[in-house]
Amino acid sequence: MAKEPKIALIPLGGLGEIGKNMMTVRFGDKILVIDCGLMFPEEEMLGIDVVIPDITFLLENRDQVLGIVLTHGHEDHIGALPYVLRQINVPVYGTRLTLGLLTGKLKEQGIERDVQLHAVKPRDTVQIGPFKVEFIRVSHSVPDAVALAIHTPIGTIVHTGDFKVDHTPVDGEIIDFYKFAQLGERGVLVLLSDSTNVERPGFTLSEKVVGNTLDEVFRQARERIIMATFASNVHRLQQAITAAHRYDRKVAVVGRSMVNVVSIAHDLGYLSIPEGTLIEVEEAARLPKNKVLYISTGSQGEPMSALTRMALGDHRQVDIMPGDTIIISATPIPGNEKLVSRVIDLLFKQGANVIYDPVSGIHVSGHPSQEELKLMINLTKPKFFVPVHGEHRMLIKHARLAREMGIPPNHIFVCENGQVLEFSKRTGRLAGRVTAGRVLVDGLGVGDVGNIVLRDRKQLSQDGILIVVVTISKDSGAIVAGPDIVSRGFVYVRESEQLMDEVREKVRIILEKCFDKGISEWSAIKSQIRDSLGKFLYDKTRRRPMILPIIMDI
Amino acid sequence: MAKEPKIALIPLGGLGEIGKNMMTVRFGDKILVIDCGLMFPEEEMLGIDVVIPDITFLLENRDQVLGIVLTHGHEDHIGALPYVLRQINVPVYGTRLTLGLLTGKLKEQGIERDVQLHAVKPRDTVQIGPFKVEFIRVSHSVPDAVALAIHTPIGTIVHTGDFKVDHTPVDGEIIDFYKFAQLGERGVLVLLSDSTNVERPGFTLSEKVVGNTLDEVFRQARERIIMATFASNVHRLQQAITAAHRYDRKVAVVGRSMVNVVSIAHDLGYLSIPEGTLIEVEEAARLPKNKVLYISTGSQGEPMSALTRMALGDHRQVDIMPGDTIIISATPIPGNEKLVSRVIDLLFKQGANVIYDPVSGIHVSGHPSQEELKLMINLTKPKFFVPVHGEHRMLIKHARLAREMGIPPNHIFVCENGQVLEFSKRTGRLAGRVTAGRVLVDGLGVGDVGNIVLRDRKQLSQDGILIVVVTISKDSGAIVAGPDIVSRGFVYVRESEQLMDEVREKVRIILEKCFDKGISEWSAIKSQIRDSLGKFLYDKTRRRPMILPIIMDI
Repeated sequence: MAKEPKIALIPLGGLGEIGKNMMTVRFGDKILVIDCGLMFPEEEMLGIDVVIPDITFLLENRDQVLGIVLTHGHEDHIGALPYVLRQINVPVYGTRLTLGLLTGKLKEQGIERDVQLHAVKPRDTVQIGPFKVEFIRVSHSVPDAVALAIHTPIGTIVHTGDFKVDHTPVDGEIIDFYKFAQLGERGVLVLLSDSTNVERPGFTLSEKVVGNTLDEVFRQARERIIMATFASNVHRLQQAITAAHRYDRKVAVVGRSMVNVVSIAHDLGYLSIPEGTLIEVEEAARLPKNKVLYISTGSQGEPMSALTRMALGDHRQVDIMPGDTIIISATPIPGNEKLVSRVIDLLFKQGANVIYDPVSGIHVSGHPSQEELKLMINLTKPKFFVPVHGEHRMLIKHARLAREMGIPPNHIFVCENGQVLEFSKRTGRLAGRVTAGRVLVDGLGVGDVGNIVLRDRKQLSQDGILIVVVTISKDSGAIVAGPDIVSRGFVYVRESEQLMDEVREKVRIILEKCFDKGISEWSAIKSQIRDSLGKFLYDKTRRRPMILPIIMDI
Repeated sequence: MAKEPKIALIPLGGLGEIGKNMMTVRFGDKILVIDCGLMFPEEEMLGIDVVIPDITFLLENRDQVLGIVLTHGHEDHIGALPYVLRQINVPVYGTRLTLGLLTGKLKEQGIERDVQLHAVKPRDTVQIGPFKVEFIRVSHSVPDAVALAIHTPIGTIVHTGDFKVDHTPVDGEIIDFYKFAQLGERGVLVLLSDSTNVERPGFTLSEKVVGNTLDEVFRQARERIIMATFASNVHRLQQAITAAHRYDRKVAVVGRSMVNVVSIAHDLGYLSIPEGTLIEVEEAARLPKNKVLYISTGSQGEPMSALTRMALGDHRQVDIMPGDTIIISATPIPGNEKLVSRVIDLLFKQGANVIYDPVSGIHVSGHPSQEELKLMINLTKPKFFVPVHGEHRMLIKHARLAREMGIPPNHIFVCENGQVLEFSKRTGRLAGRVTAGRVLVDGLGVGDVGNIVLRDRKQLSQDGILIVVVTISKDSGAIVAGPDIVSRGFVYVRESEQLMDEVREKVRIILEKCFDKGISEWSAIKSQIRDSLGKFLYDKTRRRPMILPIIMDI
């Protein structure tokens, strides 16, 4: 009997975490990759810039990888491409704005010339090896977002990407209900669907709601308006610019990423800015206060962002003035709550009026709530269901929701990154694992910071370091210089001279004891110093600095 | 004309921040202190354990301080007492449970014998010098909480402490409306009121709501129940124990602070536990799964807490099992969101069913929402109003609320810690400043970790440290040992041997150049090494480790 052909789905990111989304589809010896995102470091990843997926699996099957298709232009879906394309340079497919945002990133890394980008439109179909990929319009918090229908000899896989159902989108482009329904009618083998907001009942509000709120705020503001939001939320920017124009305000753009996105979105025709509305920041400073809108980065309270600098009175061009209306049109990403809260507090302190979430309607999510998730399942009527894009609990809750809608439990798969999901036309099962995980990027180093370095950074961050240096004569074993004691991040040295004297004396005694006992291996002496000094310092201070003995010989 | 007598209010903590609440009242040369709390360190206070108020002002006026009155037993109101009483040992006044919780802390520090504690009951009045202090029952998330009316020759100051208006409190003890109304009728000079929840419209829900939710959860649970909450929320514990008893479950207590509080509250009669209900953790392990409730610490996802250890599979006594119902009866304190979210995710991953906020009714706040704040103002009808206990934006919003209710703007004071507020019978004004601020506690060190140490810890945490050691002959200026290069938290050394070799060579060249140019001051040589090496490493790695040159001479 011939072996039944199978298709495999292998997530390399985005499951059990928010960020670094990456899914692979394998049929025979051909692999297609969906998205290639980064995530921002967790709190304990000290000094790390970004986190990208481990692509060992792709590197091991380099010749099989046909291309990468993108659902939309957010960092958590495209941000790892500059790193990944350096290692596997395959064609990339995406809509125009998605590729525009990607190109900005590739340019920063100086590799935009080496990459093959293929622009597609919603309803386009592209044949990539055995995969016929159909791009389907969805609504999301960046324009030009698409879901994917991947037609394979085994059946059709639908990947929603990030989506919401917005019945009144800002650009009038409604999610392509017909396409999803048609796919459902013809038969969908597997649905992979966005789990981010599965904990929210009801429907996610329309982006237009924010437009109405902005209109109201602009109508009432008597002095300057400063609005911070996600740079990539082009529809939000559009609504702010439209409101500014309506109330006779000029618009100045502040913050590098905001300037970049406004320029890209404007060039590509995704942002319509009335003639003469956009002005330089210097010019804005000369206009009457009720004639200005600043659009700024910093909606997440990022320490180096424009809004944070303004709040700290540290921005080169814009000072906060009493009477300013400041709009933070965003909700804090988990982990940023305190940063955002501090910026708001600083702005209040400077006399500004700050409008922020949860003030109703100043921000709406770009992800689907429970009723939208149900709609997606009932439109596509999949045989198998795989919740993606979310922490583990969200995947579980999304699976529950699918079960309540009648999908049999053994047709629902809650997976982890690296698990292989294998489907025939009739069956689905877990079929082993491939390498998957997180690669930490720190400066130019990709993957060179591991557990040991992070553990050291953690210890250094808590109690600092104490270094003991001594030079010993090879011949006599006598101390010829030192012991010198240097510490950083442990105690304020000028106020701790006595403690440092005691440490020096302590080391001298330890060394003498070692010599007396005939201990001469340095490792043994160092370990003696670490142990005795560690105990001594803990007793004295209840702190555990890293202790680093360095012995030189001459 | 004789100088009009004045009373001064001087906040030493709790304004513009959540935590370390401390207010002083001064009349003539007599000072009364209200509360003495700690706060937990902000993210950038690396390695710091807790933060306490700077009490320089009290130390400078040591002889004037008559006593400390406490509103309730939360850390942010009593947690700094063990540190402060060591420096100023004055009588402390509080309700029985408040003093019970305090005594636990004093014992840990071994100073409980030296402290004079005076227990009071609601409606008690205590004369402390010129201050007649009346204790008034309020509802809060710890029992035995009181507001204070401080009668002085100038007028009456009402300090709400933390409060909410709970019409159906668990212990039946309703906030003392009569007393507040009586004070209002007789005339209140200044009201200081809790601003924590001023951003929430409506009324805060009754603690009984949680009891109803717990009943429903207990009724449905088929296997073990593990509930985490704040240890000090004795009413919450009572409701859980009552529900356990109702559904025939025994109760085991896990986590040091939970064990302590249950014991104190039980001994003092604030917790009623049916005979035979409380069992040891070991015994619980032997009972059928549907006969057990564990009450545990860890509702904030604290890394060392019992629930977090269970979630990590790392707890000595309790393992999570599929089918467990886990209740997190708390809301994350700002900054803890991500920790809590991670614990929830780990618990889901182990197959537990986790019930947590925002599931309606599993937690309610202990602070007053807008309607309760209005009620407090209208009951007490103060001449002057000072919002306390909250970040700056909350104080501003509370001030706005008071203004909308008809208190004249110049009778409302939004202050910062250290500002002196001076009142006569008719007037109120800002009258200068005293020293106030934050003192960082790290191990045994109180206040010895300052900006330099924190800056060093920050740098060490981001890119680690690189140490350069060299021994030089005093006579010839020649290198006699080294340069040795040691790094921690910078790169993984075993994979960076080549880089380390280059660094060593680089240092040798720098030293030679210095000698050639006749530079012999060590400080100049060190600064050369730091600059050149810093640039070199940044070019190679885009990281900026701390560079520490150590030169020894013989």
